[in-house]
Amino acid sequence: MSTAPFKPTLADIEAAADRIAGHIVATPLFENDALNALTGARILLKAEVLQHTGSFKFRGAYNRVSQFTPEQKKAGIVAWSSGNHALAVSAVAAKLGVQATILMPSDAPRAKVEGARALGGNVRLYDRKTESREAIGAEIAGRTGAVIVPPYDDPYVITGQGTVGLEMVRQARAQGLELDAVLGNCSGGGLISGIASAVKALSPATAVYAVEPAEFDDTARSLAAGERLKNPAGRESICDALQVAIPGEITFPIMQQTLAGGLAVTDDEVRDAIRFGYKALKLVLEPGGAAALAAVLSGKLDVAGKTVGVVLSGGNVDPENFAAWIAA
Amino acid sequence: MSTAPFKPTLADIEAAADRIAGHIVATPLFENDALNALTGARILLKAEVLQHTGSFKFRGAYNRVSQFTPEQKKAGIVAWSSGNHALAVSAVAAKLGVQATILMPSDAPRAKVEGARALGGNVRLYDRKTESREAIGAEIAGRTGAVIVPPYDDPYVITGQGTVGLEMVRQARAQGLELDAVLGNCSGGGLISGIASAVKALSPATAVYAVEPAEFDDTARSLAAGERLKNPAGRESICDALQVAIPGEITFPIMQQTLAGGLAVTDDEVRDAIRFGYKALKLVLEPGGAAALAAVLSGKLDVAGKTVGVVLSGGNVDPENFAAWIAA
Repeated sequence: MSTAPFKPTLADIEAAADRIAGHIVATPLFENDALNALTGARILLKAEVLQHTGSFKFRGAYNRVSQFTPEQKKAGIVAWSSGNHALAVSAVAAKLGVQATILMPSDAPRAKVEGARALGGNVRLYDRKTESREAIGAEIAGRTGAVIVPPYDDPYVITGQGTVGLEMVRQARAQGLELDAVLGNCSGGGLISGIASAVKALSPATAVYAVEPAEFDDTARSLAAGERLKNPAGRESICDALQVAIPGEITFPIMQQTLAGGLAVTDDEVRDAIRFGYKALKLVLEPGGAAALAAVLSGKLDVAGKTVGVVLSGGNVDPENFAAWIAA
Repeated sequence: MSTAPFKPTLADIEAAADRIAGHIVATPLFENDALNALTGARILLKAEVLQHTGSFKFRGAYNRVSQFTPEQKKAGIVAWSSGNHALAVSAVAAKLGVQATILMPSDAPRAKVEGARALGGNVRLYDRKTESREAIGAEIAGRTGAVIVPPYDDPYVITGQGTVGLEMVRQARAQGLELDAVLGNCSGGGLISGIASAVKALSPATAVYAVEPAEFDDTARSLAAGERLKNPAGRESICDALQVAIPGEITFPIMQQTLAGGLAVTDDEVRDAIRFGYKALKLVLEPGGAAALAAVLSGKLDVAGKTVGVVLSGGNVDPENFAAWIAA
């Protein structure tokens, strides 16, 4: 792969798919009568919550770490993550026999912090509001020689996540369907830039949208403005996985070239989507994993009569929160 | 199909599969690293909770009602069910434009009673401890001409549920795997007799087990005794879907010919499996849908080194119960 600006080709994403095949769950793309009836569309759900460690992040992490040289494997990994990347890197590191130091915000869900520790990750907590995870990570990498595995701004991570889009188009076609649109959750943009690269290469007519929390709609605003814009400080959302400060350096140019736009959902709409996921889909969705579904359920896009792919990207959520959100 | 004793052939089950194709969800068979690590086996999970109306019951109901004559469609359906069959019959009836009267126990989960009503089913509650649903159903059928769609003792229902087994063997083989064993949840035996018929026809070496609550282990005891034995009255279990009084008349001879035996799990083991489903699999399992998983997790069968199919058969559970069961 060449250096900046990185634009993933179909061949890059197919190479990632070959690399991770047999190690990932080839997650299903399925329909639900109740959801189709509610939306008047054919909604094809990509159940990436069934991926190992409960989110799509395992794909990118495996694609990156499996490329380590023997020296890099010995040096170990340093990574930072709001949670799902931490779980994925911890699991991949354990699988490939590599040590991993993971920086996680001190207010991350217990399910994520304890999960990463249980998988063998050496978790170090930091204060999301006063410390820079990038700075701490760079310091550790510089001191120990550990290799940084970024959560999104990395070609291997992006193409790994892009395999979700590759599978979606192929699974839809295996059912005789073409996707009019694809909606994916977006924080730094690793998932949606990868997905959009694959989808647009295979199916140029498909419109791909990034879905964000209304309080963290940096991607939607940046796409509209044509430049990377920050989120104002002090914002809050239940979507712990979607709280990046600004779109990625590598991911943003890709998103500019491939996305139809950004959609934003409120926390209430996300809670409704989680409740729908529980009641009708029988899937455990975390807030950040339910945003794209929330966009469809709350009518953020006119989907009537269309065939629309929706990525359910993660399901790591503390039981007391999930219990509160599914209560009728 | 011939009359008693009914033994479903592979051709019968393939015909059912053709009939319901395009109307059901072809549910995924997937693995989970955490579960494989815990059991030392390759556990292939059949996520039938992703089926329409949240359980396998949609298959049998669709296979039966789609065979109605125009006169039968006009006469309508009468059915009885602890819940999942009620949801499935209500959905199928709505889809095919048939009226359905459904008898449900007054202590069925609200998720099931309200769900069946929301789907248009005409639900009539009865007292599970003092009334006979078969007698009430026969009375209604006699008076109105409605066609009885039984929950398990019916050839079309059995072959419809048997498509789960057909898919499991084929999905496993598509991954290059042969199943050493298959475990399915069992109440009247419609699901497991259908699955076992398909599995044994395609893969005679596979051992198929019925899994029941310890308090309702009539199938395990009946298989051992060589005759249909009742459960003692007054027993309780959280597995609302698995509380039949005695194995089915039609299903039992099939089970005798096809099953390796029965396994029983306690309510505590089922709760542990529901919690595991939430934490590691990101699936919403109801108690009766989690019994087979509970059998594997609690070591009821020696699965180490083996490839084992486990059916996750239903996920319709009231949120307050689910919340209590997933609390760490």
